[in-house]
Amino acid sequence: MTESNLARVLQDDPAPAAGDGEAFVVFTPSGRRGRFKLGTPVLEAARKLGVDIDSVCGGRGICGRCQVDVNQGSFAKFQIESRSDNLTRPGAQELRYAEKRGLVDGRRLSCSARLVGDVVIDVPETSQVHRQIVRKRAEARVIDIKPILKLHYIEVREPDMHDPSGDFRRLCESLREQWPDWGIAQDVSCDLPVLVDLQKALRKGEWKVTVCLREGRRVVAVWPGFREKIYGLAVDIGSTTMSAHLCELATGEVVASGGVMNPQIRYGEDLMSRVSYVMMNPGGEVELTRVVREAINHLATEVAAEAGIAREDIVDLVFVGNPIMHHLLLGIDPTELGGAPFALAIDTAINLKAAELGLTLHPDARVYGLPCIAGHVGADTAAVILSEAPHNQDAMTLIVDVGTNAELVLGNRHRLLAASSPTGPAFEGAQISSGQRAAPGAIERVRIDPETLVPRFKVIGSDLWSDEAGFENEIRRTGVTGICGSGIIEVLAEMFLVGILRTDGTIDGAAAARSPLIEPDGRTFAYRLTPEVAIVQNDVRAIQLAKAALYAGARLLMDKMGVDSVERIILAGAFGSHIDTKYAMVLGMIPDCRLDRVWSVGNAAGTGARIALLNAEARREIETVVRRVEKIETAVEPRFQEHFVGAMAIPHATADYSNLAAVVTLPARTAGEVSSAGEGGGRRRGGRRGRGIE
Amino acid sequence: MTESNLARVLQDDPAPAAGDGEAFVVFTPSGRRGRFKLGTPVLEAARKLGVDIDSVCGGRGICGRCQVDVNQGSFAKFQIESRSDNLTRPGAQELRYAEKRGLVDGRRLSCSARLVGDVVIDVPETSQVHRQIVRKRAEARVIDIKPILKLHYIEVREPDMHDPSGDFRRLCESLREQWPDWGIAQDVSCDLPVLVDLQKALRKGEWKVTVCLREGRRVVAVWPGFREKIYGLAVDIGSTTMSAHLCELATGEVVASGGVMNPQIRYGEDLMSRVSYVMMNPGGEVELTRVVREAINHLATEVAAEAGIAREDIVDLVFVGNPIMHHLLLGIDPTELGGAPFALAIDTAINLKAAELGLTLHPDARVYGLPCIAGHVGADTAAVILSEAPHNQDAMTLIVDVGTNAELVLGNRHRLLAASSPTGPAFEGAQISSGQRAAPGAIERVRIDPETLVPRFKVIGSDLWSDEAGFENEIRRTGVTGICGSGIIEVLAEMFLVGILRTDGTIDGAAAARSPLIEPDGRTFAYRLTPEVAIVQNDVRAIQLAKAALYAGARLLMDKMGVDSVERIILAGAFGSHIDTKYAMVLGMIPDCRLDRVWSVGNAAGTGARIALLNAEARREIETVVRRVEKIETAVEPRFQEHFVGAMAIPHATADYSNLAAVVTLPARTAGEVSSAGEGGGRRRGGRRGRGIE
Repeated sequence: MTESNLARVLQDDPAPAAGDGEAFVVFTPSGRRGRFKLGTPVLEAARKLGVDIDSVCGGRGICGRCQVDVNQGSFAKFQIESRSDNLTRPGAQELRYAEKRGLVDGRRLSCSARLVGDVVIDVPETSQVHRQIVRKRAEARVIDIKPILKLHYIEVREPDMHDPSGDFRRLCESLREQWPDWGIAQDVSCDLPVLVDLQKALRKGEWKVTVCLREGRRVVAVWPGFREKIYGLAVDIGSTTMSAHLCELATGEVVASGGVMNPQIRYGEDLMSRVSYVMMNPGGEVELTRVVREAINHLATEVAAEAGIAREDIVDLVFVGNPIMHHLLLGIDPTELGGAPFALAIDTAINLKAAELGLTLHPDARVYGLPCIAGHVGADTAAVILSEAPHNQDAMTLIVDVGTNAELVLGNRHRLLAASSPTGPAFEGAQISSGQRAAPGAIERVRIDPETLVPRFKVIGSDLWSDEAGFENEIRRTGVTGICGSGIIEVLAEMFLVGILRTDGTIDGAAAARSPLIEPDGRTFAYRLTPEVAIVQNDVRAIQLAKAALYAGARLLMDKMGVDSVERIILAGAFGSHIDTKYAMVLGMIPDCRLDRVWSVGNAAGTGARIALLNAEARREIETVVRRVEKIETAVEPRFQEHFVGAMAIPHATADYSNLAAVVTLPARTAGEVSSAGEGGGRRRGGRRGRGIE
Repeated sequence: MTESNLARVLQDDPAPAAGDGEAFVVFTPSGRRGRFKLGTPVLEAARKLGVDIDSVCGGRGICGRCQVDVNQGSFAKFQIESRSDNLTRPGAQELRYAEKRGLVDGRRLSCSARLVGDVVIDVPETSQVHRQIVRKRAEARVIDIKPILKLHYIEVREPDMHDPSGDFRRLCESLREQWPDWGIAQDVSCDLPVLVDLQKALRKGEWKVTVCLREGRRVVAVWPGFREKIYGLAVDIGSTTMSAHLCELATGEVVASGGVMNPQIRYGEDLMSRVSYVMMNPGGEVELTRVVREAINHLATEVAAEAGIAREDIVDLVFVGNPIMHHLLLGIDPTELGGAPFALAIDTAINLKAAELGLTLHPDARVYGLPCIAGHVGADTAAVILSEAPHNQDAMTLIVDVGTNAELVLGNRHRLLAASSPTGPAFEGAQISSGQRAAPGAIERVRIDPETLVPRFKVIGSDLWSDEAGFENEIRRTGVTGICGSGIIEVLAEMFLVGILRTDGTIDGAAAARSPLIEPDGRTFAYRLTPEVAIVQNDVRAIQLAKAALYAGARLLMDKMGVDSVERIILAGAFGSHIDTKYAMVLGMIPDCRLDRVWSVGNAAGTGARIALLNAEARREIETVVRRVEKIETAVEPRFQEHFVGAMAIPHATADYSNLAAVVTLPARTAGEVSSAGEGGGRRRGGRRGRGIE
């Protein structure tokens, strides 16, 4: 027991009354306490007090989930002396467990240990049903494990001709009898595959089986004998890549992860070309649906093999994806999402059997799909919200999930807005002359010497900078093959900071005088990073368009929210996980914000899917939150276009970046520099400058 | 309006208060009444008063389900003058309906007709949602139509980019808005196939669709435009034959019926040989399951074609069958049912999607299976209970469902017992030398002249007796091919009544002196009906064994119930539908009972399936009743054997048949006649006579 737990418990207590033939028990960290007859198993006392102790075997000394520690010593407040020998000594069952599975010194199985005197019992985190997963980022929400599925080992009464009843009825009766304090429903039901295999499972297990129960009322699986672990899969279906995390459902542990390219790519690189494919090939959605379902089956096989389990051990699956991925997985023709008014078929959460989607996991495995928010804002964004929980924040939070489109969420506990911005694929390295996906050989970090304009950089696959000893050796296998999204952001931001790039996005020919790395390129200039990789003017333009769309979307949401600044910014998405938030701000991708309140969180959609997999309440939570989200359609908002134009400049034609300026020295900006770039030129009345660049 | 309806309404009424700009409306037969603003549609007034008027189109003058009559005349009690012109004159919509679909003189569409003055409105049976089907037998329960599925025609709001929401959400909103008084749930959900087709259905119907809703909360189907009818299938899976009734769900009308042989017959004639097949051929249940599912698909195709509808118009299916048929349809290996303790896999009702059973009806069609009662007493017996409703009777009722086994139910509203008796297939014509199934050419009725011992008979396919003119001509096509179950019962009973057959079941050689139709047959005698058909001694023995089992089962239940007689007897089953109840009693198949309280009701299991199909509450009813049924296992009851032995005699060695004796002259019985037959011979102490015959 930790000091603080103990201190908390000791704070608020009446001294126990004496009782003959009874023992006084205090559980920590919950602080719950009570008197029980001598001989009561500790687990029983705990369940009676509502103390959260896990069990799979129902108190038979098999599973070892119910381990506890005895706090030794004198507890004056309770007027008790807690001693480990105030529990019965380990019996045969407990010793057998200790021998077979090991038991940390002093630990007891609470189902076997019985009260013979007063004790203070500590329930370690690992013995709780509702344990927690603390995340790496200090400010991120803790993941509570509140499994929707729970294993129950039971012994079923054998059939009796004199009192005939179906095997399933007796199974349900045993469940309720042997797990009395676990809230098992009166009307437990089951799926057909359970029923088909039930009689054989009962007889093979000699009437001892492990039942997997969903929300205390639906039998999802029955295995002969004792079984300890079940698994779930959290799947994030991106338009380009699909990833899956295999989790042990009781602990939340990720036991294997995998990823594959989305096989739909062969029908179209981006979302709209896939919708076009369906439009041009009536019934084509059937094929797109088939391949994505196959890919999930493939992923499941892969992660199951990695974890050394059978695919049939996977009993639950949660999926997230943008609306088109979401609809195609379900077999819904995405045509309506390809044009205004972008109507979703359904905007509520999806609950299905895996078999209905052709997914071959456990025959009764379930599928949960987080709700889509709007035609452009999908279940992936819902998952990001679940992961980053802006609705639990006081601070005005902007979440940017960057993919081929950028999904944006702005708000706090009072109000949430969401929109999608058409950034295009530039951030992913497409449309960039030397661009490539984030893979070994790609430049991902860049620094430019402000005097010499000579770059140094890092390449995926090596931890060394290019000017460090051994770098050449480390990248010998791949060489430098191109530059990925995060590299582009950094090189442009650095080019801007050292004066190679002007506010209007022009590569400054005047800089050619400072270094031969600035090369003429037709009527424009290029900046050479390596013999293979250079940044040309059109690369800058592509990123300007993308970042202006991103900024304009965020700014539009801020307008709608009626705020001029945000207090927190979260960059999500595979892209977001690699970029340096400072450089994103230097380029003006995102609004100004204190830099220590800007986080790059990686695949938050995948994390959200994992939370929904592990916590039944989180599903209800996101379903409720999503209904509250106000959807903003950028395409029909005239102000989006206005914001877009202003946001072409670096970092922005007019926006205040005072937080950034406090930590980075931004080049001085001249009015001429901006106006010379705008085709419309000049300033507007009311202080709005710049009609945008190109 | 009928006189009695009107009289009832007029009995209990306060005079209406006058009101400006309002009309007073009385609905009959419900008697509900109220004041409404002038201009209120009659349908709206009715719904507000909770009057049961049907509608599919939601008051758009399309479906014509809401037709009503105006009662003309002066209603002193209400101080009103009800006149047909106190409703608005038919408008364009109503006239169009009358022109296209026809409208009986004076009938009005209550959705179109609006109040302009006081009226007494009669709602005809055909306009009620909860109409009734009165059955032919006066004492049989009326079938209430309380459909689990209901059609709702709606106009769905089109998607709006400024207020994005999924098509399914808008559909649900429209349902609730346009059907406000129909108890539609807040959380309507749907199946995947509905979702997959939803967007196309909405756009094809130009945002006008008909929704099929299950219990007000689950969308089962969405069709573009207006649709008026949906269908359900009630399926009775017998071991030998399978039958199906296709019903229109709103009216309960049987629009087509069909039957096929159970294709499992090729794996075994009777139930136990099919179980043996599975035991000998591991995995053989898969094949048995496949063929029975195929047969249902085949039946569905057949009845749908007969009714001129598509198989996809069938949205619900109810099945009944004995436990082995029930389990095999579900894909459950029936091995456990083949031996003690005869454990069912499940004894509760089954709710599935048709697709889960490989049934290709509407993609979202549901399947309901009535609960099995015990290992030998199946869902077919549950259906018989539902049809014959002994649990609603004060009178002690015995129900005998005769098939290869006989299922027996005894009880009343206070208590119900059930058992199965191993009668074997003799009643179905098997094991009988000239026996055959009930088909054209089979003798089904027999009378024997008490003087000449010459028989006359009827043959299936002709309404004439064999001694009537034209008989030979009528049966020329088939000839006389054999004798079916009901014919065997009658001929044996008649043989007994005219003295050819002795109480012990011996064909009396002495009768040969009276007629050449009694022929020597080895060491026994035979009775010749026609040149082709004779009754031999072994035929009598086979029927004796079967009827003794039947009687013993009934008697065992009576013992358990503590009664010496029953007040009502219902003979169910295809066999039961053809036999003359008097002859069944003469043979001693059933206990003594007033003959006018013995009914032969035909396929009551099929009727029960139909009731469950048409009435959601009936499903809850039978689920509850079945739990109350006490199951008696004949195989483990020593008294069954005792009763069996006594019941070999005709009608019985000891039982009192005073009711029967009052209407039929039973041959005098001598002690010698009985004791000579019994191998054990003699009388027992305590009055129990006869140790049985052979």
